[in-house]
Amino acid sequence: MKKTNKLLFALLISTSALAQTDSATIKKIFNDALTNGKSYSNLEYLCKKIGGRLAGSPQAQQAVEWTFKAMKEAGADTVYLQECMVPHWIRGEKEQAKVFTSNAKSFKTLPICALGGSIATPAEGLTANVIEAKGIEDLKRLGKENIQGKIVFFNEPMEPTFIATFHAYGKAVMQRWAGAKEAAKYGAVGVVVRSMTLAHDDNPHTGVMSYNDSITKIPACAISTNGADWLSNYIKTDKEAKFFFKMNCQTLPDEKSYNVIGEIYGSSKKDEIITVGGHLDAWDNGEGAHDDGAGIVQSIEIIRIYKALGLKPKCTIRAVAFMNEENGGRGGKKYVELAKLKNEKHIAAIESDAGGFTPRGFSSTMGAKQKAKLKSWKTLLEPYGLHDFEREGGGADIEPLNEELGTPILELMPDSQRYFDYHHTAIDTFEAVNRRELELGGASMAALIWLISENGL
Amino acid sequence: MKKTNKLLFALLISTSALAQTDSATIKKIFNDALTNGKSYSNLEYLCKKIGGRLAGSPQAQQAVEWTFKAMKEAGADTVYLQECMVPHWIRGEKEQAKVFTSNAKSFKTLPICALGGSIATPAEGLTANVIEAKGIEDLKRLGKENIQGKIVFFNEPMEPTFIATFHAYGKAVMQRWAGAKEAAKYGAVGVVVRSMTLAHDDNPHTGVMSYNDSITKIPACAISTNGADWLSNYIKTDKEAKFFFKMNCQTLPDEKSYNVIGEIYGSSKKDEIITVGGHLDAWDNGEGAHDDGAGIVQSIEIIRIYKALGLKPKCTIRAVAFMNEENGGRGGKKYVELAKLKNEKHIAAIESDAGGFTPRGFSSTMGAKQKAKLKSWKTLLEPYGLHDFEREGGGADIEPLNEELGTPILELMPDSQRYFDYHHTAIDTFEAVNRRELELGGASMAALIWLISENGL
Repeated sequence: MKKTNKLLFALLISTSALAQTDSATIKKIFNDALTNGKSYSNLEYLCKKIGGRLAGSPQAQQAVEWTFKAMKEAGADTVYLQECMVPHWIRGEKEQAKVFTSNAKSFKTLPICALGGSIATPAEGLTANVIEAKGIEDLKRLGKENIQGKIVFFNEPMEPTFIATFHAYGKAVMQRWAGAKEAAKYGAVGVVVRSMTLAHDDNPHTGVMSYNDSITKIPACAISTNGADWLSNYIKTDKEAKFFFKMNCQTLPDEKSYNVIGEIYGSSKKDEIITVGGHLDAWDNGEGAHDDGAGIVQSIEIIRIYKALGLKPKCTIRAVAFMNEENGGRGGKKYVELAKLKNEKHIAAIESDAGGFTPRGFSSTMGAKQKAKLKSWKTLLEPYGLHDFEREGGGADIEPLNEELGTPILELMPDSQRYFDYHHTAIDTFEAVNRRELELGGASMAALIWLISENGL
Repeated sequence: MKKTNKLLFALLISTSALAQTDSATIKKIFNDALTNGKSYSNLEYLCKKIGGRLAGSPQAQQAVEWTFKAMKEAGADTVYLQECMVPHWIRGEKEQAKVFTSNAKSFKTLPICALGGSIATPAEGLTANVIEAKGIEDLKRLGKENIQGKIVFFNEPMEPTFIATFHAYGKAVMQRWAGAKEAAKYGAVGVVVRSMTLAHDDNPHTGVMSYNDSITKIPACAISTNGADWLSNYIKTDKEAKFFFKMNCQTLPDEKSYNVIGEIYGSSKKDEIITVGGHLDAWDNGEGAHDDGAGIVQSIEIIRIYKALGLKPKCTIRAVAFMNEENGGRGGKKYVELAKLKNEKHIAAIESDAGGFTPRGFSSTMGAKQKAKLKSWKTLLEPYGLHDFEREGGGADIEPLNEELGTPILELMPDSQRYFDYHHTAIDTFEAVNRRELELGGASMAALIWLISENGL
């Protein structure tokens, strides 16, 4: 045997031995998650005892306190808070919407909800004719002559033929985000936006929208997809129908809030950090189960699993419950600001913010060499249903880490078919989450973190 | 350029052109399923207007008639029935179970249901002490001295650490199938079987069980997992507690029923048949939505898609709604019997009987060459989330085709995490099925059938 061959052989043996150890550890992680898992009961508490928890709300504060305790109970070596100021928007009384026939003799009630950040309507409500637009671009075609003084009804549906529902969301969501400020440029007095979902039902989907201080602010609501279909159809024949809606939401002064952080100290590379997290805030109209209670309890679960199994990762594992992803991203920004200040070394960051569904892989934003390393672990992860490591992605809370520190970022990629049925609605509840699907997601992140910690990225 | 190279080049070009055509056709199939799909509304009808439809029941007959009509409406070139005789078991009045404390001063009600095929208890119910067994093998350990005169409580849970839940089912289900006849050998007077599910809840799961004519027949019921956990715990301290249950199920004489078959005639190989199906019968306690309304409406959908798109497959596509998969398999047996009689040429058969969840791939039972061909299509199917073509499998209704005619068989493999939450229960309802997940399953089969029909297997 030649020397180089011997070397190669030795290398192969040791690589394979390593892979075997990793494989055994991953098996232990999944077994523990699926038999002793606490993520499901934690999610029940977060959803049922606290519920919706928009940044700045008393529920958000309760969630901070509960997460602190839950991370301690999971066995974290240290748990601490990171203070940040967050926006404080409140929905107020339940919103109302009606369509009056042009002869004013009858009306139909429609299910709406205010978009997050919207101003209120006048106290008596706002009534005007409606003009339908298929997305933002359509405003140009309609022009000021058709829009002035009216309520713009943005009705571009999410594209059902995209297999990845997040792509369909990405294509349609600009109506929600920028609809009010764009329509106001043409003299619109309010906007109604078709809910961001592929489901046909009566649930309006809230979500953040934005204003521009130099453009008149007009109130904006979401309408359920069934409501949108009805409205679109109705105004085809009754062009003078009046849309009425009433909302008394308000933006209050910023509030103090926190990211909650729990760590397992690295055994040999304590200063090298792997961040894993989700966002703790959730829209006020539901329980924030998939969005993003799932990501929170999965991140806490990683601490529990490592401690229960006595796993001692080389790097420091930092579970982060980010505050205010939904309407400001202040927690994510604060996190990177402090990381820079302390000159921290971040090896990788992983977020779970796409629902507690069966995991299918990880998307990532990182260099080609790192991506190749990630893909080299496919054979270790495929037995657990993780097969897709190709896509670009990364969570909203950890994007600043990538942008400002160049940290490789990843996002857990669960099956996406059901996500937008629940997203930002009253039905995003604990009952919508399946225990095993949730547990598999936490275990998948725990396994990937182990591979990164032990083998580098 | 050498001649062989030229040939190779020409071959590559034509193969790639073919792949492009196939790829475009597959895209059209998925687009149509996701925009014009009728499988979801068909499922609603089957579940809500007909409901549970066990072989021999009036509902099964209604389902036969409805499926005939639905296949016609989907545009089948021909629709016909295949007569077969089926068992006719009825559940009777709602089952009751109570556990009386040994001092007979109090009792607790437990959720049970009769296993399919069980005899009734005596009219006044059956009361006896309970002995717990962890699976069939455990009977030997306990022996006649511990079992005689008692009710055996089979309480081996499904293994939660298996990622594929069907493997966990396969390991535990022998308790349900053979528990009564095995326990009777030791003198047991009845059996209670832990429900076949990984969920922790109050739903008892029915399913077929079997007797042996040479062994005393004893009544058998399923108990919910929460009930099983309670019972197991309770009898640890109160060993003389009495279990009471009452069921008045009956087996009536065999009934006449039917497989329902709809065909699209092959354009150039009419005599070469690709079968695709599910089973039309469903347990009486639920609506049979995932099991197997999904497979039925997906099979009908394939006809609709091909006709809507004007696809003319070379081979004959035969959608089959098999009767009596749940408690006899008579439809599947009749189908192969007639196929043999008519000397039919079956190219492949595909079944969907694992729920209307997001499809992940196809399992199969066929030769290595055929499996290699199947895997060569992976790149065409992966964009639709179909990534797993490795596993062995095939549906219960089409297994006889493989066994007796050597037909290559395949089964649609949806994500399996939620399946046993619903399987054989009252909550296997229309509401438990997600529209897109269901539609993707039908489109996946339509796409695979196209590839087989055009390129052979």
